[in-house]
Amino acid sequence: MTTTIPPVPSGETSDGADLAANSAGPIAADHVNASPAESHLHVDDIHHIDVPGLTQILDGRWAHMRAWGREISADPAFARPIDMPREEHRELTLARLKELAKRNWSAQMLPGSLGGMNDPGGNLAAFEELVASDPSLQIKAGVQFGLFASAILHLGTEEHHSRWLAKTMSLEIPGIYAMTEIGHGSDVSAVGTTAVYDEEAEEFVITTPFRAATKEYLGNAALHGHAAVVFAQLITRGVNHGVHCFFVPIREDGKVLPGITIEDDGEKGGLNGIDNGRIAFDHVRVPRTNLLNRYGDVAADGTYSSPIPSPGRRFFTMLTTLVQGRVSLSGAAISAAELALGIAITYGSQRRQFADFTGVNEVVLLDYQLHQHRLFPLLARTYAAAFAQEDLLHAYHEVFSGEGDTDENREDLETMAAALKPNSTWLALETIQTAREACGGAGYMAENRLVGLHDDLDVYATFEGDNHVLLQLVGKRLLGEYAKSLKGMDAGDVTKFIASRAEAFSTRHTPWRRLLQSAADLGSVRRTAASLRDPELQLELLSTRAESMVEELSLNLRQAPNMPKEDAAALVNSHQLELIEAAKAHVDLILLTAFNQGLEKIGDDATKAVLVRLRDLFALTTIEENLSWYVINGHLSLGRARTLRDYINRLLTKIRPHALDLVAAFGYTQEHWRAPISSGLEAERQAQAAEYYRRHRASNEAPIDEKILYKRDLAEKAASRAD
Amino acid sequence: MTTTIPPVPSGETSDGADLAANSAGPIAADHVNASPAESHLHVDDIHHIDVPGLTQILDGRWAHMRAWGREISADPAFARPIDMPREEHRELTLARLKELAKRNWSAQMLPGSLGGMNDPGGNLAAFEELVASDPSLQIKAGVQFGLFASAILHLGTEEHHSRWLAKTMSLEIPGIYAMTEIGHGSDVSAVGTTAVYDEEAEEFVITTPFRAATKEYLGNAALHGHAAVVFAQLITRGVNHGVHCFFVPIREDGKVLPGITIEDDGEKGGLNGIDNGRIAFDHVRVPRTNLLNRYGDVAADGTYSSPIPSPGRRFFTMLTTLVQGRVSLSGAAISAAELALGIAITYGSQRRQFADFTGVNEVVLLDYQLHQHRLFPLLARTYAAAFAQEDLLHAYHEVFSGEGDTDENREDLETMAAALKPNSTWLALETIQTAREACGGAGYMAENRLVGLHDDLDVYATFEGDNHVLLQLVGKRLLGEYAKSLKGMDAGDVTKFIASRAEAFSTRHTPWRRLLQSAADLGSVRRTAASLRDPELQLELLSTRAESMVEELSLNLRQAPNMPKEDAAALVNSHQLELIEAAKAHVDLILLTAFNQGLEKIGDDATKAVLVRLRDLFALTTIEENLSWYVINGHLSLGRARTLRDYINRLLTKIRPHALDLVAAFGYTQEHWRAPISSGLEAERQAQAAEYYRRHRASNEAPIDEKILYKRDLAEKAASRAD
Repeated sequence: MTTTIPPVPSGETSDGADLAANSAGPIAADHVNASPAESHLHVDDIHHIDVPGLTQILDGRWAHMRAWGREISADPAFARPIDMPREEHRELTLARLKELAKRNWSAQMLPGSLGGMNDPGGNLAAFEELVASDPSLQIKAGVQFGLFASAILHLGTEEHHSRWLAKTMSLEIPGIYAMTEIGHGSDVSAVGTTAVYDEEAEEFVITTPFRAATKEYLGNAALHGHAAVVFAQLITRGVNHGVHCFFVPIREDGKVLPGITIEDDGEKGGLNGIDNGRIAFDHVRVPRTNLLNRYGDVAADGTYSSPIPSPGRRFFTMLTTLVQGRVSLSGAAISAAELALGIAITYGSQRRQFADFTGVNEVVLLDYQLHQHRLFPLLARTYAAAFAQEDLLHAYHEVFSGEGDTDENREDLETMAAALKPNSTWLALETIQTAREACGGAGYMAENRLVGLHDDLDVYATFEGDNHVLLQLVGKRLLGEYAKSLKGMDAGDVTKFIASRAEAFSTRHTPWRRLLQSAADLGSVRRTAASLRDPELQLELLSTRAESMVEELSLNLRQAPNMPKEDAAALVNSHQLELIEAAKAHVDLILLTAFNQGLEKIGDDATKAVLVRLRDLFALTTIEENLSWYVINGHLSLGRARTLRDYINRLLTKIRPHALDLVAAFGYTQEHWRAPISSGLEAERQAQAAEYYRRHRASNEAPIDEKILYKRDLAEKAASRAD
Repeated sequence: MTTTIPPVPSGETSDGADLAANSAGPIAADHVNASPAESHLHVDDIHHIDVPGLTQILDGRWAHMRAWGREISADPAFARPIDMPREEHRELTLARLKELAKRNWSAQMLPGSLGGMNDPGGNLAAFEELVASDPSLQIKAGVQFGLFASAILHLGTEEHHSRWLAKTMSLEIPGIYAMTEIGHGSDVSAVGTTAVYDEEAEEFVITTPFRAATKEYLGNAALHGHAAVVFAQLITRGVNHGVHCFFVPIREDGKVLPGITIEDDGEKGGLNGIDNGRIAFDHVRVPRTNLLNRYGDVAADGTYSSPIPSPGRRFFTMLTTLVQGRVSLSGAAISAAELALGIAITYGSQRRQFADFTGVNEVVLLDYQLHQHRLFPLLARTYAAAFAQEDLLHAYHEVFSGEGDTDENREDLETMAAALKPNSTWLALETIQTAREACGGAGYMAENRLVGLHDDLDVYATFEGDNHVLLQLVGKRLLGEYAKSLKGMDAGDVTKFIASRAEAFSTRHTPWRRLLQSAADLGSVRRTAASLRDPELQLELLSTRAESMVEELSLNLRQAPNMPKEDAAALVNSHQLELIEAAKAHVDLILLTAFNQGLEKIGDDATKAVLVRLRDLFALTTIEENLSWYVINGHLSLGRARTLRDYINRLLTKIRPHALDLVAAFGYTQEHWRAPISSGLEAERQAQAAEYYRRHRASNEAPIDEKILYKRDLAEKAASRAD
């Protein structure tokens, strides 16, 4: 099938530098309104930004681990196959994972006492980079180390560690993480699988009581898993103690054990190097000591005990181990967006289409305003997300290394991961799809990577916490402090509460709270004369929106606690969309804050000047997306709102000359992109064609264009009529 | 990999009917502001809409052809394979296409003189439905009949018809449409392939002069094509007469002919049942009479002649044959969106997650406001697109059946197709992706269809006219009438011109023009008191935006004709985004107008009442998307803008009870969806689980929940402390 279309009459420009000079007015004027800290910076289209320096800043604390991950991802031995049959791809992925295990992959996650390096942050940094090899390999590694081994590590105790951890890390025991069921994905507390304690035999009996309780979508289930960590309702002495985790052998000598039924999930939208499948249990017995008993244990006589008395809090504590999946998928998704931008922006800087004003040369795609507008705002948001991801990784490391493992930090980490994972994964999907379309038919060829990235990353939006469910958690966290206090308050109390809350936030320390603090601090800033390029005004606009939305929502819901349950449920449901939007507004604020903090790390002036433009583009396009809210709620005047688009358009032309550097700074090379369209092949072909036409024109053999004869003819006829 | 997440505290509602009664206020009040024609209609949640009647209206003039297409699509013999190896899929698709040919597929497109039925509209209606079988089959049929055979039919003359058409229709000659080149997709006039006439031999010599001129992405090229229609620069007697089309044999007895080099495109993002490939020509000779010579011929002595003297107009006339691809892909994309909505809305009405306010039952996904908001606006837009598609098909039929083949109608058809194809194909991609995510992990399983639909439909956005390039054509058409007249005008003249233009449009007849007329007619309507539910106000808002954007743009560009070429090009480029947005605003207006006209065809009151709500949802969500524009430009007051979201939320709850009927009316059944998740399996599993818990609770063996004991314990301790 062909891509065919009549040509658009020419009338586009040819050159980014010209554009910048042309449409934006004197560059100096552009700095008049910038903040004092940024006002000495000049965007210089001739001097390039410091790419290695910027890469170092983006790579952050665990640059060495990212470098290791990128080294592996660049190795063709780990590259995603383009069209390998599924069975073959599955075996290849297992073999590759074993090779990674030989190189001590993920050993960083273990504490020193278990032979590890107690560097959970570094472990995830390397993991995030693995997406550039083959996402199937990444996720299979995630199942083995991030889920299966982590459950043994975090939910089990010493005996479990010594029995299974080393074999798990070496892949002697490929494992399955059996939590999700057909009937319950997002609502884990409602899983149907039961583990009933049999005092006589001192065993748990694991059972799938109905079809919907079948464990589902489990990596390693269809073929490779030797054992599973199974989440089931623990029942002993007539009491259901809620969901606990059990180590259950699944296969021995390649054969599925009795009582266990396996089904293969078959073909998926992507990640087909992983053997996902379903598992059902028919009274499968495991020894009492196979209960991973850190947070809940059963004595030989069936007595239940737990260090956490509240069953609700116990459940959430066990689930906290899941946060690492969200943190690392968020980072992986950002890497995928960076790859897609690298491919599309490189191709866009070489590909030409439609003649320019000279009629001889063709215009480079990336010089079209539209092409810039499709790709640059996503580039800006990807930078913002990358800076925020580094903060998230620090928060994760603090808790899981034990450096700062407090309840408060855990809660903040949970919320921040729930906020950023949806943003990163949706950003990746949007960026990959935009990049694919921006590369036209070439983008649809599997060899150019983009369609494969979309296929594989698609599920990142719904697994390890469905994005919409996660955003609801964020929204509810934001509402939480209100909701508890609002009960029985009148309007005056609410106002006082809001004021006190701002103060309370200012004493806290984690990134999540620092953020709210900075928002609160800015509450009084109202400089109507400030430029939209003023970073404080940008921050004020985003924080005002984030705060107002929560406040408005909490006011709308404040009658709920006093209402009959059914009415309260209806009221909450009728504001569900606002809850999601409030959460998204907070995500935008997190990103802008992180971008601003990232800017402070940049020493090189030329680099900083370009990144300030990129930050402006992120802030202003985010404001533009919600422009009606700002205008309706009186935070932006109509006059200022009208100027927004011009600001944005000028930023596009200023960023254009640096676009290639900005994607190079992500640290990926041709070896990671592996896309023929961005390899320079396109530029070579263009040069060859241009050379052909040049020689042709220079020769005497070139045919004359009928159009020229026709015009000449028309002109002659007109002249003879005029005579 | 698993989808896991802590449960969200309950507090959602359980039942669509309750919601409707609850959040929207008295239903009667809702009609106070409706237009007179709609004011007698009542949404009755108990009485169902007339599904077969609505299907009939949606199916329109060619209902019989759609029925035939749907009958074939429902046949498992034509179903898209889930994970077939590419080579096998390619052979299967060829075999299926031959089977279709046996059933006289596409015979409707031929005129009576060639044994056809002269029913081009009916032909495309059936073609659109074929997407539900396997998009690879659809597109392979499109290459054979819509491109290859159509080129012979429309660009060739009688001798060509008699030599090749019958063999093409029977698939004796599988054909290739060789237009796009590696270097030129969208800009067809710039293709590099040459066809130089050799007077001595009375032959054309076809050559690929450089790598970028290689023909690319050609269906049937890699394996199956026996011949190609090749677009090349026709050069005779030292003059290049521009792009013409040549019939060129490619394979004989399965062997590629001398001078021809074929490469296989290999794996693509989807449509892997088609053998796309590249073709290069090295001085390949074809007889003079292989030039498809309807619009340009070369005599034996090399003399060129054409019925169309202007080379530019001749080129565009030849390309008009391409419009059928755009018309039919637009319709196919809408069908794909309908399939995705059918699957996701059916599953959403059965799938339950998280306990409701009773704590016993779980909430059906489709009762969550968020789930409704994700799916229903897309449902509304799909209805709008389906109504507009019927108009487009009529316009296409009028031109290609000869009933109204005027230059004016051709131009209108081109523009309307260029406007609707981007809308339909992007709508399909967004809808399929939203549906996939709304079905969670199940949506990612290939057996549930959604990921395959995305893979296959992805390229619809960039082939047969890249969506952004098409929208520029629309924008330029809208500007065209201004641009011609603006040269030399002063501001007063411009105002007069705008007024005269409105009058000029009112005398025209095709849908494209009727639309502009209705917009102009409404220019004077300004009823500030009218409700946002008032269809005239909705229409006024959409038409005002569409008109204003073109007017503003034309004023911004009016100096361009007087500027140096380079400056003019820069000016136009700096407004490229506005051009696209102006075109999109017109598309929205086309859709709303078509939806309103569609409503007039509905006789059944209950059906009409629901469809009015759906139209309102389409109009209001479209207005909401551009709300900042309306507010900034003074077309909506701040007060009214604030009420918009409430209106929309109320509409969601009103549409909820009819959602299943609305997707059923698309005419697709389980046989078309072929998705286990929407087959009723999910409801069965839910019932089985509920029955298990019911029996369990009724028995004496059910374990007691530790949470209950814990709460009781806390209460007892509190009581003893109080003593």
